[in-house]
Amino acid sequence: MPYTPVAYDAYDFANRRHIGPSPAEMAGMLEVLGVESLDALIAQTVPDTIRQARPLDWAPLAEHELLARMRAVAGKNRVMTSLIGQGYYGTVTPPAIQRNILENPAWYTAYTPYQPEIAQGRLEALLNYQTMVSDLTGLPVANASLLDEATACAEAMVMAQRVAKSKARAFFVDENCHPQNIAVMQTRAAPLGIEILLGAPEALEADKVFGAIFQYPGTFGHLRDFTDEIAALHAAKAVAVVATDLLALTMIKEPGAMGADIAVGSSQRFGVPLGYGGPHAAFMSCRDDMKRAMPGRIVGVSIDARGERAYRLALQTREQHIRREKATSNVCTAQALLAVMASFYAVFHGPKGLRAIAEKVHFNTVRLAEALKSAGAEVAPGAFFDTITVRVGVGQAGILAAAEQRGINLRKVGRDRVGISLDETTDADVIARVLSAFGISDPAPAETALGFPESLVRASDYLTHPVFHMNRAESEMMRYMRRLSDRDLALDRAMIPLGSCTMKLNAAAEMMPITWPEFASLHPFVPADQAQGYAEVLRDLSEKLCEITGYDAFSMQPNSGAQGEYAGLLTIQAYHRARGEGHRDICLIPVSAHGTNPASAQMCGMQVVVVKSADNGDIDLDDFRAKAEAAGNRLAACMITYPSTHGVFEETVSEVCAITHAHGGQVYLDGANMNAMVGLSKPGEIGADVSHLNLHKTFAIPHGGGGPGMGPIGVKAHLAPHLPGHPETGGGEGPVSGAPWGSASILLISWAYCLMMGGAGLTQATKVAILNANYIARRLEGAYEVLFRGTRGRVAHECILDTRPFAAAGITVDDIAKRLIDNGFHAPTMSWPVAGTLMVEPTESETRAELDRFVTAMLAIRDEIAAVEKGEIDATNNPLKHAPHTVADLIAEWDRPYSREQGCFPPASFRVDKYWPPVGRVDNVHGDRNLICTCPPLEDYAEAAE
Amino acid sequence: MPYTPVAYDAYDFANRRHIGPSPAEMAGMLEVLGVESLDALIAQTVPDTIRQARPLDWAPLAEHELLARMRAVAGKNRVMTSLIGQGYYGTVTPPAIQRNILENPAWYTAYTPYQPEIAQGRLEALLNYQTMVSDLTGLPVANASLLDEATACAEAMVMAQRVAKSKARAFFVDENCHPQNIAVMQTRAAPLGIEILLGAPEALEADKVFGAIFQYPGTFGHLRDFTDEIAALHAAKAVAVVATDLLALTMIKEPGAMGADIAVGSSQRFGVPLGYGGPHAAFMSCRDDMKRAMPGRIVGVSIDARGERAYRLALQTREQHIRREKATSNVCTAQALLAVMASFYAVFHGPKGLRAIAEKVHFNTVRLAEALKSAGAEVAPGAFFDTITVRVGVGQAGILAAAEQRGINLRKVGRDRVGISLDETTDADVIARVLSAFGISDPAPAETALGFPESLVRASDYLTHPVFHMNRAESEMMRYMRRLSDRDLALDRAMIPLGSCTMKLNAAAEMMPITWPEFASLHPFVPADQAQGYAEVLRDLSEKLCEITGYDAFSMQPNSGAQGEYAGLLTIQAYHRARGEGHRDICLIPVSAHGTNPASAQMCGMQVVVVKSADNGDIDLDDFRAKAEAAGNRLAACMITYPSTHGVFEETVSEVCAITHAHGGQVYLDGANMNAMVGLSKPGEIGADVSHLNLHKTFAIPHGGGGPGMGPIGVKAHLAPHLPGHPETGGGEGPVSGAPWGSASILLISWAYCLMMGGAGLTQATKVAILNANYIARRLEGAYEVLFRGTRGRVAHECILDTRPFAAAGITVDDIAKRLIDNGFHAPTMSWPVAGTLMVEPTESETRAELDRFVTAMLAIRDEIAAVEKGEIDATNNPLKHAPHTVADLIAEWDRPYSREQGCFPPASFRVDKYWPPVGRVDNVHGDRNLICTCPPLEDYAEAAE
Repeated sequence: MPYTPVAYDAYDFANRRHIGPSPAEMAGMLEVLGVESLDALIAQTVPDTIRQARPLDWAPLAEHELLARMRAVAGKNRVMTSLIGQGYYGTVTPPAIQRNILENPAWYTAYTPYQPEIAQGRLEALLNYQTMVSDLTGLPVANASLLDEATACAEAMVMAQRVAKSKARAFFVDENCHPQNIAVMQTRAAPLGIEILLGAPEALEADKVFGAIFQYPGTFGHLRDFTDEIAALHAAKAVAVVATDLLALTMIKEPGAMGADIAVGSSQRFGVPLGYGGPHAAFMSCRDDMKRAMPGRIVGVSIDARGERAYRLALQTREQHIRREKATSNVCTAQALLAVMASFYAVFHGPKGLRAIAEKVHFNTVRLAEALKSAGAEVAPGAFFDTITVRVGVGQAGILAAAEQRGINLRKVGRDRVGISLDETTDADVIARVLSAFGISDPAPAETALGFPESLVRASDYLTHPVFHMNRAESEMMRYMRRLSDRDLALDRAMIPLGSCTMKLNAAAEMMPITWPEFASLHPFVPADQAQGYAEVLRDLSEKLCEITGYDAFSMQPNSGAQGEYAGLLTIQAYHRARGEGHRDICLIPVSAHGTNPASAQMCGMQVVVVKSADNGDIDLDDFRAKAEAAGNRLAACMITYPSTHGVFEETVSEVCAITHAHGGQVYLDGANMNAMVGLSKPGEIGADVSHLNLHKTFAIPHGGGGPGMGPIGVKAHLAPHLPGHPETGGGEGPVSGAPWGSASILLISWAYCLMMGGAGLTQATKVAILNANYIARRLEGAYEVLFRGTRGRVAHECILDTRPFAAAGITVDDIAKRLIDNGFHAPTMSWPVAGTLMVEPTESETRAELDRFVTAMLAIRDEIAAVEKGEIDATNNPLKHAPHTVADLIAEWDRPYSREQGCFPPASFRVDKYWPPVGRVDNVHGDRNLICTCPPLEDYAEAAE
Repeated sequence: MPYTPVAYDAYDFANRRHIGPSPAEMAGMLEVLGVESLDALIAQTVPDTIRQARPLDWAPLAEHELLARMRAVAGKNRVMTSLIGQGYYGTVTPPAIQRNILENPAWYTAYTPYQPEIAQGRLEALLNYQTMVSDLTGLPVANASLLDEATACAEAMVMAQRVAKSKARAFFVDENCHPQNIAVMQTRAAPLGIEILLGAPEALEADKVFGAIFQYPGTFGHLRDFTDEIAALHAAKAVAVVATDLLALTMIKEPGAMGADIAVGSSQRFGVPLGYGGPHAAFMSCRDDMKRAMPGRIVGVSIDARGERAYRLALQTREQHIRREKATSNVCTAQALLAVMASFYAVFHGPKGLRAIAEKVHFNTVRLAEALKSAGAEVAPGAFFDTITVRVGVGQAGILAAAEQRGINLRKVGRDRVGISLDETTDADVIARVLSAFGISDPAPAETALGFPESLVRASDYLTHPVFHMNRAESEMMRYMRRLSDRDLALDRAMIPLGSCTMKLNAAAEMMPITWPEFASLHPFVPADQAQGYAEVLRDLSEKLCEITGYDAFSMQPNSGAQGEYAGLLTIQAYHRARGEGHRDICLIPVSAHGTNPASAQMCGMQVVVVKSADNGDIDLDDFRAKAEAAGNRLAACMITYPSTHGVFEETVSEVCAITHAHGGQVYLDGANMNAMVGLSKPGEIGADVSHLNLHKTFAIPHGGGGPGMGPIGVKAHLAPHLPGHPETGGGEGPVSGAPWGSASILLISWAYCLMMGGAGLTQATKVAILNANYIARRLEGAYEVLFRGTRGRVAHECILDTRPFAAAGITVDDIAKRLIDNGFHAPTMSWPVAGTLMVEPTESETRAELDRFVTAMLAIRDEIAAVEKGEIDATNNPLKHAPHTVADLIAEWDRPYSREQGCFPPASFRVDKYWPPVGRVDNVHGDRNLICTCPPLEDYAEAAE
């Protein structure tokens, strides 16, 4: 018997690890669809006219090859001690948080908690976050995080304008704000016609502004009490914003005590790695009467069907969803995973622990300042927390170099000063090295004298809730993290078939490098020669994304898809301006567009003109043409989504682009649906000028329970000079994010995904994503009407199911969504883009077995609906209306016209491995009527730790 | 208001992270105990006479300091490509396995699955392991792992002696066995009087031996068919053992097909990091009629109370527990976590994937061999799988150095040969570098010709079970791992109050370094200069352990506590021999000793003399003295446990030591209970000569669901020269493990624990462990009788509860254990050291809140027992007898005299975060009668992947 080698692709290859259906499964699925091959299906789905000519062609890497490459690249970064400050500080991530949150798929693969019944764990963690922010800032309402401190400042400015009774058009910005905060506010202000008045706090003329922002502590370290300035603002009916620092607030007077209306800042230094700029969670808190104007997501407390406490997203129909082109913010993605980490950091340390850390930092800073002063240095400011500025004159370069030689980065301030910001990692050795860089060899003596006046000492309590007083033994902390994660249903347990959200596998190998110190410990403003590894990542990832999209350049700065839209439109505007066509101000947007599209256009000061949909969901081409003509030379841009938000490859896309270009406009193609295009079609080749990519959708960055996201934008060459720049790196237009490359560290995930998939693997993923969606559409048709298809009857990577016919029987889309929980599934996207529908996107990562389980669930639900329709079961007392079923239901008296078995174990649910939602259906009306957005009093926590 | 700094110990400090009760909790507990301070309690508990004079005094490190130190030490190891082979091979750990198993507390903090209802997940994974081993070796029964390949060989030898009908006293050992396998068998054989006949297979004289072992592939690479030798052995009623390699077995004829009776080997190369020697899981499989003689744990299949399939440990009353001093093995700990990893590696790859990997390795080896031969090298053997040996004459040193220069370690074989073993990580570049070291610059062409005869090609199928044909998309694999872990209850969800097992926190920071490549990728036999980091760890950890124990030297070689006992007794024997007192052969052991004690003594050929217990559980001193006198100059040693297995600090320990010494014997002090001594008392100071430490108990190595363990031994100076040596490092006596420093990589955990705790932290941990145990004893007394206390009424670190009084009501210790599951707890140790008791050891890591929850559970159970005693509830139809309750119970018709609520939610159970056991009470009798130890046929797996 001669030996025959096996022909076999190892699991560790793109098309086995990331792609769900096995070859055998795929063959069976194609048979169900009645097509002979995957390529035949694609030919029926993707119009020939938009197919790319040349396949993506780089070779895939195996997991161990990828990790070896990553280690080599990591080695090109130099990990130094950065005392640069400016909103980014060294911090110690408790290993238990790193392991059990950041590196745990139960947390990082979760989706945004729109379905509260399966998200009670992360909702509790986010409520802890809100409580922490509210307490520390001294303002009653906080949101569940924003993208970064700089955009939070800009959001606060716009919010101030909306709530201020002052009709002034100017906004005062403290010149002591971090430079990137100032720059991002300037970017944001310009298209909205807001005049930025930059100056020292003393220069504030309150009656000339609708609001003002102060940085506290200031970027150069200054601490001052803004009570008088805030009073003046209030007298002028203007709004006061304070950008602040959570760690400092454990010692110093809080903004709320000064009368501030809004507080913003970053929670990065609460245990979140620097990551060369992010991701980090920014915070915002405000006065109670302003809460409905606050951007971002807010977690609130309500009750479930049994009256038990249940958390939910409150005020969740936010700005861009309701107000669309009248919205003042397009914020959508948050930084949930990082907010969760920061909240656990506070739980781990408690108020006393946080203050002990703050004191260590502060007294070290006093010690350093005194040592420098004793040696004759000119040290400012007089009152400080963790940051001092030393005047060094012409010696600046020498001091910076001497520090760098000693492994320390100081901040270059102007031409004659250096800034030094200490943090919780600063120890005696670091202080000695800093002093040595100044030529001082005496060790600095310990200090306990405050570096700021007693009038600035915080007088109020904070973090008084029991959760911040839990026993801090690691066993207890670990179990708390485990319990919360067990309450939630994430990708590590089941498919999350969320249309438009592309909940694909986030492979373990892709996640590993982000916590390596060489990537995690870099300050975003380190000298370029210390970040050569990152430079390589940025270069190679940009090249690959250019090849994938057909664009010529990428900006990695936007931290979310919506921010990408905004940055893309700004780029278009700058381009028009540069050509002397700054008057172009009309943006055409189809009525079906995601709400962030018109909101982004509004933020750019554009006038949104809505284009109708044809009956089949496509853009109404006649209407588009007419409105483009009407806009004429005012046409700035159109924003289209491709494939459409209806999940169809519209055949007319090239024509839409051509019409736009004919009128001098630019085409913004929303990349939310790129998972249906990669390897098959390039936006840059079909006529688009700019797109953002949701790296957290198409390129394997996990959703983190509602962020981080990344929305880099690609542009054609003519737009490249107009991409966002940054004060630290120069070039381009104004920045849209606080850090030059946004949340740089998670770019590693997308890069790893591209490297391991290879060009062919990425293309195969796209094809299988389309196969999976068409398979579901085919299996469910008949039971459900599948809305919107291409000309040959195929959907793209998602399909929309109509539930409106069930309204007659009183069954809502919500009932179906909750009943899916009983079946062990997260619901599809609800009522978007069409009310009363479910949009299902399986992604390529799901196996046929999992798709079949979902089909089983949906068909069983359809049977239950039919029973209601036929009157076989009560219209209000049935498994759909009681869904989701909980253990409490099982324990209680059972007086329902169906059995416990039927209620709890519908056909698709696992038997042994059943997921039990911790609460029954959450009462939204109650939650809205009784808005509580900080932790409610609890009796069930363990004894206080202190 | 002047500023007052907070006085606060951060969580990140030994006495907050590792020590459960907060200061406030501790104060309350002391009040309950009626003592004024922790030190007063200790004074009442630990006899003055044994207290150490000088406190442990090294300073603690914070988590980030620890990790920084670890990184510095890691940097002193040099990661090279090791082609040394000899049973250790490069492998690729799939990142999803690393993240979701090895780095996941749900897996690593689990206990041995003695309570099957809360261990179905890991039991399934271990059953997969057994099935994999059974299939690949072609023998029907496999166990769930042994400590390492070398000890597995020794176990097989002893097992062969037990089952062989031949009465010969000699055992034949193939000289092609790995040198460490030979050496460990020699160590094991000597005290048992087994004569080892070492030679080439041709030299076998079957009628002179009770068994023989062959290595296949041989250590120098040779493949040969042992069918004829095995037939000859069988004709002589002798037993045939084959030590083999799982990866090779995917291509070559399996031992079962040659007629072998027993197969052993290592599963390391199935995805388990090298770790400088371990931990790795060894395997053993055998003929069906020998299974009851097989050492180690075996997972079997049974049914639960509802008749549903349920896994359990079969044949679990093993050797040392029943046979004690007649036992032929003391194996207790396994390598469960590593066996689970290896089983998932097989699930990830499936049979075709494994064969594809084997073929890659093999054809690369052929290619290398051909290239060397073409260049004129003398390459052996003629038939090989992955290993070749090249005769290089006097050039040996030069070749080895040239390879090392190129980043490659080759094996030095004799004085004129080098060995080369390829593995799955070997790529073209490595082959080119090897050839270059031989001065060959031509790239070797690809090969598909077999390097062994077709008669050796495997003809049978393997891994046909559906679990090895699951869809291998990572989503599916991740969910399978999650589902299994969710079925289990481990330390990450609740206290595991296992007496004698010290289930303390395994802190995340301690676990992190073990997966860093600098520690994980080192072959155990690399040149010493490449392992300077490990050398530092070994040196510093030894010093600290010496300081803790009062000993003068440590051997890190033993891989488990039982192996430590064995190594310690061998050391004593060697010492006696060296003094011309080799005739000393009596070992005194108290009747209460753990079964491994007499088993270990038996393995050393000692005669065990059992010493009675006094009524209070202490050693009966009169009996001890009498038996020591009777032994006279035959007294070799006594083995005592301290504090005693009854959880008491016996006051007479020094006298026991003195008596032993007076008769020329040595004192072996079992370190199982060191968690009650660290920082308070030193075995080496109170009279003991040697002890093992269970690092997986006292020193924070996790239990891993039944291993890894580590049992290093400390000795007084006079014994130091007689500690185990190793063929690779020389020195000392014969080795007891395959690797010189045992499972070196997990020593990092214990070292990290010592460094972060500091001397004071370790001491405080001991005190709090004693506090926690006394608190539980106090809270439960009255409800339960607490057996065995010290003279002042205190227990040590654990307490024993008597359940025998409930026998009258028909309530067994099992009923209580299972009812604890309903309360969300793993049961305490059952019926050891006294039948019908529960031994509770809370450890210092548990908070008062968790202790109180346990007390609540135990008191509620006592109430339920009382109800039965009083006849208030049926003696067989009650919550105790039906425990544990499952969801299936809730769903089913409820016809019990208590409510669902009472059954499922006893007072201590969590409401929202309730743990539901996946099966009801497991039927042990059914399992024993229907012994099935490989995966049963399944219908419920996803469609086959191929």
